[in-house]
Amino acid sequence: MKLGDGVEASIHCTAFLAGLEEGAVLPGAALAEFHGVSPTYLLKHLKALVGAGVLQSVPGPAGGYRLARRPDQVTLLDIVFAVEGRQPAFRCGEIRQRGPGAPDASAFVRPCGIASAMLRAEAAWRDALSGTTLADIVADFQATGDPRSVARGCAYLEANQRRQPSSR
Amino acid sequence: MKLGDGVEASIHCTAFLAGLEEGAVLPGAALAEFHGVSPTYLLKHLKALVGAGVLQSVPGPAGGYRLARRPDQVTLLDIVFAVEGRQPAFRCGEIRQRGPGAPDASAFVRPCGIASAMLRAEAAWRDALSGTTLADIVADFQATGDPRSVARGCAYLEANQRRQPSSR
Repeated sequence: MKLGDGVEASIHCTAFLAGLEEGAVLPGAALAEFHGVSPTYLLKHLKALVGAGVLQSVPGPAGGYRLARRPDQVTLLDIVFAVEGRQPAFRCGEIRQRGPGAPDASAFVRPCGIASAMLRAEAAWRDALSGTTLADIVADFQATGDPRSVARGCAYLEANQRRQPSSR
Repeated sequence: MKLGDGVEASIHCTAFLAGLEEGAVLPGAALAEFHGVSPTYLLKHLKALVGAGVLQSVPGPAGGYRLARRPDQVTLLDIVFAVEGRQPAFRCGEIRQRGPGAPDASAFVRPCGIASAMLRAEAAWRDALSGTTLADIVADFQATGDPRSVARGCAYLEANQRRQPSSR
């Protein structure tokens, strides 16, 4: 089982944006620079996060990204769904209906027990992801992160965030 | 997130092998035929299941595959690990250590809170998978599967299993 590496970058970026002042945005280039990833690589994921309603994109020369909702309203599952899609990891190919002598479709009205068990396990994974919000991630980082890392993040945001005219 | 489609075939095949008579084996070609998949495709996964100690392979003209343990001793997690490997789906690239002005490694002794949250969710998934055995899958199939499917499986096993000289 594999999650794309865009998940790590996307959670770090969205958690970072939770530190913006109210109404401010951060340019995509700054998000990429701070996290040491290429802007074009990150842009794909930022677009997906905007498309899923996790981020807002403010266009124009003073534009950038910010969270579309409060950090306690954005779960890790929201971010994983945005970046990886909502399809289950387990893909049921209805293998039970194949092979010589398989009965007709009327024998397979009830879901396959194997697929059901696999999807129950994924539900446990999704439940755990939806039980953690960006607010939890940020609170944990502020409480347990190395003070140098916390200070670096604050200073970078302060220097690079763009306050919007409408929020002044 | 994506699981390889070998997982579905592998669970169906191992659950099917749980129906063998004691000591009997089923040729790989018969396993492939019954499940409507190509023998070469299936062989890769059967080898992985043997390598992981889920299946035993009996060589020779009367050879084939059987479970290496009792069905109640084989969990869905054993099968997923065998086919997909044990690596977590979430790959932490330590993105927190990148970018300009990042502190040295001494600031990152404590695991990243984001990676920890993602791995906690995977632990929930693995716990669920390890809580379901092949015996559970077989019992559910016998209790709730369509009688035509159950009868088809029994007849195919009866016709194609190979009793070993040592078990006669």
